[in-house]
Amino acid sequence: MSAFEFDGTTVAGPEEALALAVAQALRGIRGANPLVGAIITASDGRVLASGYHRGRGTAHAEVEALAGFNGPNESTRINPADATLWITLEPCDHTGTTGPCTEAILASGIRRVRYAVADPTGPDGGGAARLRSAGLDVQQVDAGQVRRAGADDLNRRWTLARDSGRPFVTAHLAQSLDGRVAAADGTSQWITGPESRRHAHRVRSRVDAIIVGTGTVLADDPRLTARDEDGHDLPLQPVPVVQGRRAVPAGAALRGGASWLHVESHDPQVVLDQLTAGDPGHVLIEGGPTVLSAWMGAGLVDELFLYQAPLVLGSGPTGLDLPQLTTLPHALRLTLDAAENGAISRLGDDVLLHYAAP
Amino acid sequence: MSAFEFDGTTVAGPEEALALAVAQALRGIRGANPLVGAIITASDGRVLASGYHRGRGTAHAEVEALAGFNGPNESTRINPADATLWITLEPCDHTGTTGPCTEAILASGIRRVRYAVADPTGPDGGGAARLRSAGLDVQQVDAGQVRRAGADDLNRRWTLARDSGRPFVTAHLAQSLDGRVAAADGTSQWITGPESRRHAHRVRSRVDAIIVGTGTVLADDPRLTARDEDGHDLPLQPVPVVQGRRAVPAGAALRGGASWLHVESHDPQVVLDQLTAGDPGHVLIEGGPTVLSAWMGAGLVDELFLYQAPLVLGSGPTGLDLPQLTTLPHALRLTLDAAENGAISRLGDDVLLHYAAP
Repeated sequence: MSAFEFDGTTVAGPEEALALAVAQALRGIRGANPLVGAIITASDGRVLASGYHRGRGTAHAEVEALAGFNGPNESTRINPADATLWITLEPCDHTGTTGPCTEAILASGIRRVRYAVADPTGPDGGGAARLRSAGLDVQQVDAGQVRRAGADDLNRRWTLARDSGRPFVTAHLAQSLDGRVAAADGTSQWITGPESRRHAHRVRSRVDAIIVGTGTVLADDPRLTARDEDGHDLPLQPVPVVQGRRAVPAGAALRGGASWLHVESHDPQVVLDQLTAGDPGHVLIEGGPTVLSAWMGAGLVDELFLYQAPLVLGSGPTGLDLPQLTTLPHALRLTLDAAENGAISRLGDDVLLHYAAP
Repeated sequence: MSAFEFDGTTVAGPEEALALAVAQALRGIRGANPLVGAIITASDGRVLASGYHRGRGTAHAEVEALAGFNGPNESTRINPADATLWITLEPCDHTGTTGPCTEAILASGIRRVRYAVADPTGPDGGGAARLRSAGLDVQQVDAGQVRRAGADDLNRRWTLARDSGRPFVTAHLAQSLDGRVAAADGTSQWITGPESRRHAHRVRSRVDAIIVGTGTVLADDPRLTARDEDGHDLPLQPVPVVQGRRAVPAGAALRGGASWLHVESHDPQVVLDQLTAGDPGHVLIEGGPTVLSAWMGAGLVDELFLYQAPLVLGSGPTGLDLPQLTTLPHALRLTLDAAENGAISRLGDDVLLHYAAP
């Protein structure tokens, strides 16, 4: 992310500045950490730098923006005392996998900070107070401007999950255009194409645990590893979690990893209770339909990646079966989610639709 | 379409020129007429004008390009004898709802014409011979270049339909993201939003006939008219055609138009036989699932508009039911169709996927 991207861009006020920071935040991926975006402006509104959080273990948005501000682009280098840092989330004052953002801000010489949403993580957060005590001008932007810029809604589901002490839950579903996940005889490999499968492996590589039903284990015997384009295991691997009452065969492929877990229940809440000691993290619902439907029906899916292949299967099971929803007003209404690469993208012959739970 | 769009654009040879004409063609809509695109270039490859066919009753692509060439943009006005007209389809020599393109070309003074695909309509076409007899340099581009530019594939399904003496068949389907067209209790209004319904009405207004099953007539009593955003009837109205053995009630809303047809058969071929006296035209399969599945299963759907709402219905019927497809290798493989507005577009909260039959 270089400041050059915004050569010639200016923002007229807090709302426009925040909207640009929100657009930055939406370039990130959802998961264990919230989406955060930041920009740095001059007093005339010129945008000097920007940044966003790319996911756990990577730089925070404001640190990325500060790196651009201090970078090689001389035309945007001004006296830091004349710059303003805009952030969608209050800067942290906490040393996690990265250092506290307050330190980076203090070191930058920028003395004006505006943020949209207060740090929701309690005592770990609270960077605003720390910066104020160091003499900086730090203010939370007016709530109406925050709402109109979309900053209030950026991490609604993430905050909900965090408040419940549970992981952020991503689900994915690969289906034909008529909503089926297998043919009548059970054949389902491969409905979607290689680009969709690569995307699915990238999602696997960002989660802590991947949840699958005993039915899928018995039918497909998946390894549940995150693999690169050549089929080699990626460096970060999720823990396979099997949900359901049937036994996992002694020779099951998913037993081949460093660890795995069997939760002998169909209830997602029971699975969550066994997963969430410490950092809630991020889990992926792999399927099959019974498992996905249980999580979706319980309101526990925060994000859904729907891979849709240009196929008519015409018969066979659908990916979601929720017989309790008997009439249209009962339907679960999701929203298209612009995070990551926009809500709609083409993956080879398939289409990827990215939905957020309401 | 103004020549200004291509200020500064040059093409390096026949393949690039045709590819640009193909891109123009894909701005058109599929239906009774083939997609056709045209560009006009100077001898140095500069693009001077372009055009595409917007559907029945509108100017042909080459006539639109010639209008741009003769238009107000002085920077692109050159001696016509130095220009080349590139067309994806051989110019017509036929007076239909518009005059013959051969006349327009002769009147323009352009003397070099290159086209990709020979006119498939037999004696009505044949403009190349007419132009050659008037002394113009008219050539069909090399088949390999035509293929690589995508011109050979532009109207594959249209040509197939025309060769069978049948209409071009468009189907549409409004479903939840889990592939359902109604809830378990039959409620289905409204799964998709107003933008999708407006698009569906625009599609209705371009067809000659709209086909619906008796089940839908009995359940929903649709008027089957094409309406504008305010609910007023559009100027062109399709003929409602009811397919199926059950009686159409005396008070059915679709009886309110100028004419309607009841074909007491479930067989799409029987419906086609009753429709195609004279100009094959364009028909729309409205549904429900039984009718759509019959046409899709018979290989008679050329184009599918899939409106997908951000809803999980969880139960209720799917839009396609083809029990004869029992295994994945039997699946009907469609392709994303870039015609009209690209294969994928967002309509409010819904997503429109545009598919072509293989």
